[in-house]
Amino acid sequence: MKDRNYFLQKAQENMPRLFYKDIKPQAEKTVFDMGESFVLDLGNHYVGKFSFSLDIFDDFIDAPVQLTIRFGENEREINDDFTVYNGTISRTWLQEENLFVDTPSRVEMPRRYACRYIKITVINVRRPIRLFDFCFTSSTSADMSKLQGADIGDKLLEKIDDVSINTLKECMQTFFEDGPKRDRRIWIGDFRLEALVNHCTFDNKEIVKRCLYLFAAGNCGELGFLPSYIYETPYYFSGRDHLCDYALLYVVTLCDYFDHSQDIETVSDLLPICKKQLESFAAILDDNSIVTHQDGWFVFIDWCEGLRALTSLQGVYLYTLERFSKLLFDIGDKDCEKYEKQLCKIRNLSKQHLYNPEKGVFENELDGHQLSVHSQVWMILGGVISGDEGKKALLATLDNPDAKQPFTPYMRHYVVEAMIKLGMYDEAKEYIKLIWGGMIELGADTFYEVYVPDDPEFSPYGDRKINSLCHAWSCTPSYFIRKYFI
Amino acid sequence: MKDRNYFLQKAQENMPRLFYKDIKPQAEKTVFDMGESFVLDLGNHYVGKFSFSLDIFDDFIDAPVQLTIRFGENEREINDDFTVYNGTISRTWLQEENLFVDTPSRVEMPRRYACRYIKITVINVRRPIRLFDFCFTSSTSADMSKLQGADIGDKLLEKIDDVSINTLKECMQTFFEDGPKRDRRIWIGDFRLEALVNHCTFDNKEIVKRCLYLFAAGNCGELGFLPSYIYETPYYFSGRDHLCDYALLYVVTLCDYFDHSQDIETVSDLLPICKKQLESFAAILDDNSIVTHQDGWFVFIDWCEGLRALTSLQGVYLYTLERFSKLLFDIGDKDCEKYEKQLCKIRNLSKQHLYNPEKGVFENELDGHQLSVHSQVWMILGGVISGDEGKKALLATLDNPDAKQPFTPYMRHYVVEAMIKLGMYDEAKEYIKLIWGGMIELGADTFYEVYVPDDPEFSPYGDRKINSLCHAWSCTPSYFIRKYFI
Repeated sequence: MKDRNYFLQKAQENMPRLFYKDIKPQAEKTVFDMGESFVLDLGNHYVGKFSFSLDIFDDFIDAPVQLTIRFGENEREINDDFTVYNGTISRTWLQEENLFVDTPSRVEMPRRYACRYIKITVINVRRPIRLFDFCFTSSTSADMSKLQGADIGDKLLEKIDDVSINTLKECMQTFFEDGPKRDRRIWIGDFRLEALVNHCTFDNKEIVKRCLYLFAAGNCGELGFLPSYIYETPYYFSGRDHLCDYALLYVVTLCDYFDHSQDIETVSDLLPICKKQLESFAAILDDNSIVTHQDGWFVFIDWCEGLRALTSLQGVYLYTLERFSKLLFDIGDKDCEKYEKQLCKIRNLSKQHLYNPEKGVFENELDGHQLSVHSQVWMILGGVISGDEGKKALLATLDNPDAKQPFTPYMRHYVVEAMIKLGMYDEAKEYIKLIWGGMIELGADTFYEVYVPDDPEFSPYGDRKINSLCHAWSCTPSYFIRKYFI
Repeated sequence: MKDRNYFLQKAQENMPRLFYKDIKPQAEKTVFDMGESFVLDLGNHYVGKFSFSLDIFDDFIDAPVQLTIRFGENEREINDDFTVYNGTISRTWLQEENLFVDTPSRVEMPRRYACRYIKITVINVRRPIRLFDFCFTSSTSADMSKLQGADIGDKLLEKIDDVSINTLKECMQTFFEDGPKRDRRIWIGDFRLEALVNHCTFDNKEIVKRCLYLFAAGNCGELGFLPSYIYETPYYFSGRDHLCDYALLYVVTLCDYFDHSQDIETVSDLLPICKKQLESFAAILDDNSIVTHQDGWFVFIDWCEGLRALTSLQGVYLYTLERFSKLLFDIGDKDCEKYEKQLCKIRNLSKQHLYNPEKGVFENELDGHQLSVHSQVWMILGGVISGDEGKKALLATLDNPDAKQPFTPYMRHYVVEAMIKLGMYDEAKEYIKLIWGGMIELGADTFYEVYVPDDPEFSPYGDRKINSLCHAWSCTPSYFIRKYFI
């Protein structure tokens, strides 16, 4: 098995090229006095660095000028009151700097921001000053010239496709970032979805490969699962959480990558790690081959208060086994048959132990018989039920107030995937229009980490101001639109 | 007459070398958590830039760390409440920055500060961090290796000499600065005193020459007087005020410089400007050769509320005429006799019109017969009275509650000079011990712009926090100590 240094070396070799673009927003005027503020509009969401010039207007000024510069992913963030903050995430992610600068100056702000709007407030100045030559130097590893065209023929879906691609583009930096404003790491769950959309849009194979290797270099947890996230700035850091579903989805991400690239070399490098993930998972199954509860934070699936996720996790396992068996078949790996047998056996056991044929839904004793959309979706994706049986299970829970409902755009992706698998194309399309279209109605330039249709104030972090409005796991409509709707 | 470009060129050629020194203060510990703050003590007042390192302590931190860094010329400034500020000078001179930095970082703060103490407060951090490798890189154009030794033999005077020299050293940068914290320009009044002390301490001729040329390149006012101050950062700027006394003291500064350096070339370059200052002054005399009131801010002398300064200004004129006549004599200039005659004539007229022989003091009708120490001091320095007559005039006003008293260390310099001229050495020494020694008692590492013995809270700017605690015009005791007291 290749070692960590090898993986880091491979990650380094696949560093994607960054494309820079200077956006030069105009202010409505150039002369500003004490207390005045103005907002620059970049016209779209960008990730990058900001610079501007400052000079006297009508007379010499010796005292430094105090400015605050706020970067907002949308207009609300620009006008929010930052003195009040109740979030659980560090408030230092709020994008506002307090500067003292001499006149004249070319101010090159050293840090990176994610924003569409920039608000400059002249806090303190002795006389009017000129502020001009604003430049936001954006960066992305998405090569717009390689973006595959798509003839969608539906205005709303076209817009959703645009915003999905924009979201992906903004998260594509030296690796796939989760959220360029505040979650500058890569989580496997998001990675898998970003890679999927990338395959049918920018087709940047380097960045996918790089991220696969970055995770391979990480430290596995006690149970043998990969780290769920990786940082590479300010330095490489392997996350301390080891979620089982994310570890499995790493395997799926490699399968997606091989299907798209036929890159047998990378697959050979990473195959032992994938096998280890599946072995580690097999070790936490009970005598009926049903996954058991583990200590600590061991499964994600979705953010829903009180969600019991073992059935869903079981589905992720089967989904992974199916994809992995196919990969092994494609590359002629000797273990193929072993995994195929396991898949077949555990699918049957899962239906036997987790499906309630009377109600036509999955409910797991280990989940306290909790009813959830999640369980149905993942059992469908895991191939435990299909066709009308699958539809029935899904429809019995979707919008059923007694069932836990999907919450994040991430989980909603798998709802759509399940619909597609069941042939519910119209429903899938409507679901996308409802959820991602809802963000479009709010004026989104990029899709949000969290979108609660009835509650635009909602934040999983206790304060909307810290929400990430450009988030990797929300970029997936383009995948569905381009693959199934045109 | 040489033109502005020539003068600027000469100023550039005489750019003094800056000496840098890294001061590495120690904190009492290295690990700091949210809300903690600590003070670094540089051990002395320094002017320069600050850098430090920041790293994780026990675990990875992704969120930026928020710090405030405050620079204080003394400990009171470090602990003052900066949220309350009532000063008339821009509050942006308060030396405190608010930083967001990533871990790990080497933070190189780009701006220059004047301080002895540095207070770092960890405003926001997710976990404890390490702060270490503090470095304050000080700069000065004072070459300590050239500092002339002095065997003073009086503990307090020794201390006063040390602090005077320290004050001068801190103000010596690329030119003589008034106050490195907040008044980063050169005023002629301060320049004259800095140059005087420099001659008998560091003996840096370049910086004096450079400043002489910087003023020569400035724009004269309507009446023909030199600009009272010059900026050279962020770019050369010629001040808009044209105080008559300062214009005259420029001439005196050149005389001091020649006496010390015998640099005939520089004197030749600047002689026409000096003659112009004296001609301009002659033009504002009345028929009795007494200077008249002018519009706007035309005379400084001292900061005293309601001070009427025409008599003092007349004295500055005579003082200048005497020094200038001597310079012309020394260099064999043909106009020498003309100025000597003028001096003699106007001295007599000044005594005739401004001296009240009954009271034994100067009072000027144009000054509303206001009694002031200033008038006596400048008439003594102008050679209008001397000996017992001079002593009587001075003692009649010093500490007389009916007379305006000297206020700034700048004016107090001329009080001491008058005492010396009258042979009152003991009184001069006591006066220095009282005033500058008073600052020593307050723990001064450098002498203040303003020192009011009974009121340490006093600020001419409405808020003590903005006071300059290292100020050029207060560095003069070394001149007297070294010239007259050893």
